[in-house]
Amino acid sequence: MQLGMIGLGRMGNGMTERLREHDHDVRTYDPKVESRTAASLEELKAQLEPPRAFWMMVPAGKITEDVFQDLLKLADKGDTIVDGGNSNFRDSQRRYGEAQAKELHFIDAGVSGGIWGLEVGFCLMVGGDADPVKRVEPIFQALAPEDGYAHVGPSGAGHFVKMIHNGIEYGLMQSYAEGFEIMEHSQFELDLEQISGIWRYGSVVRSWLLELLHTAFEEHGGNLDDIAPYVEDSGEGRWTIHEAIAENVPAPVIAASLFARFASRNEINFAAKVAAALRNQFGGHAVKAVERAKAGPDPR
Amino acid sequence: MQLGMIGLGRMGNGMTERLREHDHDVRTYDPKVESRTAASLEELKAQLEPPRAFWMMVPAGKITEDVFQDLLKLADKGDTIVDGGNSNFRDSQRRYGEAQAKELHFIDAGVSGGIWGLEVGFCLMVGGDADPVKRVEPIFQALAPEDGYAHVGPSGAGHFVKMIHNGIEYGLMQSYAEGFEIMEHSQFELDLEQISGIWRYGSVVRSWLLELLHTAFEEHGGNLDDIAPYVEDSGEGRWTIHEAIAENVPAPVIAASLFARFASRNEINFAAKVAAALRNQFGGHAVKAVERAKAGPDPR
Repeated sequence: MQLGMIGLGRMGNGMTERLREHDHDVRTYDPKVESRTAASLEELKAQLEPPRAFWMMVPAGKITEDVFQDLLKLADKGDTIVDGGNSNFRDSQRRYGEAQAKELHFIDAGVSGGIWGLEVGFCLMVGGDADPVKRVEPIFQALAPEDGYAHVGPSGAGHFVKMIHNGIEYGLMQSYAEGFEIMEHSQFELDLEQISGIWRYGSVVRSWLLELLHTAFEEHGGNLDDIAPYVEDSGEGRWTIHEAIAENVPAPVIAASLFARFASRNEINFAAKVAAALRNQFGGHAVKAVERAKAGPDPR
Repeated sequence: MQLGMIGLGRMGNGMTERLREHDHDVRTYDPKVESRTAASLEELKAQLEPPRAFWMMVPAGKITEDVFQDLLKLADKGDTIVDGGNSNFRDSQRRYGEAQAKELHFIDAGVSGGIWGLEVGFCLMVGGDADPVKRVEPIFQALAPEDGYAHVGPSGAGHFVKMIHNGIEYGLMQSYAEGFEIMEHSQFELDLEQISGIWRYGSVVRSWLLELLHTAFEEHGGNLDDIAPYVEDSGEGRWTIHEAIAENVPAPVIAASLFARFASRNEINFAAKVAAALRNQFGGHAVKAVERAKAGPDPR
């Protein structure tokens, strides 16, 4: 079927390629990418037969909002807008309402798989009304591996499930991270590349993330020497904790995983300064002085 | 090659079967299992040509220690004792020393794969001296799937790596657990069997544990109605945290996973009583009374 793909970054580009391999007629727009078929959203609209399906594959937040508002103005009654980005599900629920008010359809599609999706297929969690979801289903089925797509619920449910998926991902990553750090510090001189390698076969902790970790050790060495200990986040972990709080659900592991990422970027570590200052105040325990440490060897 | 398997529980039995499928000559002893080839450790010894290899596949702790001490007395110089159970690596280091003093070999083998290992193969993390490990290697290679075995280091290293493997497993399990609980409480009526199902294909969180979770939802329904919220532990999570402390490594996620298991068994929850009592003391916040809640409806 026809689809208008907006955004040709790593994800949008891979998805376009996979859809074309499945003989779908994908027209594309991205302000910065020459391989696009349309030089503007208007031209993209003109290249599609109504009722159209537009797929937004752009960064969550302001860019998604801007493109969505442009599409709201541009699209014709009966057209469908799919947001495949990592939008907050509450924004998706609002956008569904705004689209409805203009007699447009809105679908929130959580897409997982990263840069490997082109080859393996993208896992797809879709929220929205039954009719437009049914109409766009050939696209979902081409993007996903077999049994890797589901219409999980009404508007917002797709991005909600994707948010939880990413929250779980934080916890899985941090679990491996802590285990490998304990091994790295141990009395044994362990070969972490070797260990991550054998764990891929027959162990209880085998997973796709473990396979990627093994590849990382192969590429960067067992000490990951050239990788800085600085972990970014894109919001989904934060939202997962917001929702845990809204629902009164304890989520200590996902919360700790999120906070471990913050800690990795916390160069000043004011909390540690506070704790050291307090130990000094009540117990006279020595503090490590900042200036001294910079000026030369510790005089103790 | 010849091997004396001691312990024919779920693991020892599956391993014996897998070894025999690979044409190894496995003699067996278990006080409680009729299918054994030997009725005593002495008879098992007599069924094996020296230098012998004994494999202990019995519960960690007292039973392992008892069998080990029996083997120390019984075995002849040059024989090898393999401990395939989940022993603490510090015990394995001590046993290695005791075996050495009697000119016996001792190997600690971490075995992962659970009841699926018979079919898939068991991931094997082996610690010990090079010579005996080399000699028993045909057994390790038959038990493991391709590339699923490694000699990871000296005595103790095998059980150390298995301990970390299990610590990571705690974190992985709790990450899924929290994500699925947030979904279960959400405003959407999500089909958790469906979601765990599609995540197996193309998603970043796909793993063997996720496959098992999907099977559990298939067998017990999306609410897991017949499963009590009570999680046991077998010690490896505790030891992982002990080692994190010994090495000064922060392991908040694995620690929180362990504590979540304790919380699941904490029927009294004295900490919650303390916190409720304090809120009542300083702020006059109402407490929920135990007797009242049992006697009838809340009078508020």
